[in-house]
Amino acid sequence: MADEPAPERADAARNREAILAAALRLVESRGVDCVTMETVAAEAGVGKGTLFRRFNSREGLMAAVLNESETVWQASVISGPPPLGPGAPPMERLLAFGHSRLRANLVGASLIDAAGRAGQRSVAAMSFANLHVRYLLRELGVDGDLPLLATAILAPLELVVLEQQVERERIPVERLEAGWDDLVRRVVGG
Amino acid sequence: MADEPAPERADAARNREAILAAALRLVESRGVDCVTMETVAAEAGVGKGTLFRRFNSREGLMAAVLNESETVWQASVISGPPPLGPGAPPMERLLAFGHSRLRANLVGASLIDAAGRAGQRSVAAMSFANLHVRYLLRELGVDGDLPLLATAILAPLELVVLEQQVERERIPVERLEAGWDDLVRRVVGG
Repeated sequence: MADEPAPERADAARNREAILAAALRLVESRGVDCVTMETVAAEAGVGKGTLFRRFNSREGLMAAVLNESETVWQASVISGPPPLGPGAPPMERLLAFGHSRLRANLVGASLIDAAGRAGQRSVAAMSFANLHVRYLLRELGVDGDLPLLATAILAPLELVVLEQQVERERIPVERLEAGWDDLVRRVVGG
Repeated sequence: MADEPAPERADAARNREAILAAALRLVESRGVDCVTMETVAAEAGVGKGTLFRRFNSREGLMAAVLNESETVWQASVISGPPPLGPGAPPMERLLAFGHSRLRANLVGASLIDAAGRAGQRSVAAMSFANLHVRYLLRELGVDGDLPLLATAILAPLELVVLEQQVERERIPVERLEAGWDDLVRRVVGG
């Protein structure tokens, strides 16, 4: 009835955040396949029953973690430390953006699998990346059809392309990063 | 028993070719959604029963058409008239390749939907495109990690990227072609 949420709801929200943060930590350190409902419950200090009550299933939890990881990543682009966040020269920011997007997408790939049908990457997430790259290209003084150039330099970071390179061709991530840097320098030019 | 196939089998193969060619013509002129088993049977001059006997279902037919269209396209790259086929300068060939790949992928997208579970684009098809672009980049004297540069300039032509641009953002194909040309000129450089 007051302006603040009831204490139970505030607690529940904090609890949810703590669970998602714990799950994301585990996914990033161990890989999705090694993360069970038990390990998440233990890491977050809650009962397994709570996990199932909140997220229904491991798929449901993984879909929420996917969402959370996208939000955390966007926050670090918008207001995190440089060079990913504001404060570094635009070329440094662009390269940092690509590398972090590449790694986030590789983690995202396994989360999308684990999330099953709930694991669709949102259109909003794609347009955030495109808008940010467009902004940096403008800062770099690039002329041309910036929405399409932004799409073109983001396209090699798409999951379908990365999965082919990493899983099938076994190309190391460092080589993918170097290749992407080369692409960006060519596109930005002089 | 002789060196030549039995007359019935040669007839059957010719018949299959004729059906697939008719179906591909219809798909390219009308769009997949307007192509039924009836229209294909009429165009190919065979009975509807023959179509079902050969391809089981509309999905089965569409999967065969997808395969056929990839084969026809590869043949035109390898030995068709310039600028897509041999004989034109490498930059002209590369631009023609991108445009024709873009349009083939847009037709392919609807075929993949129509083919259902049988409609997976093969890894062989992807490596053909990559090998061809690598060859042209080498001809153009481009230095660098050519397999990754080839992947990078092919990535904006991938279905997931094109569908977003064409279906959701309603970007005309001509603008996509111009954007791709600009990307390629930047990557190839001076």
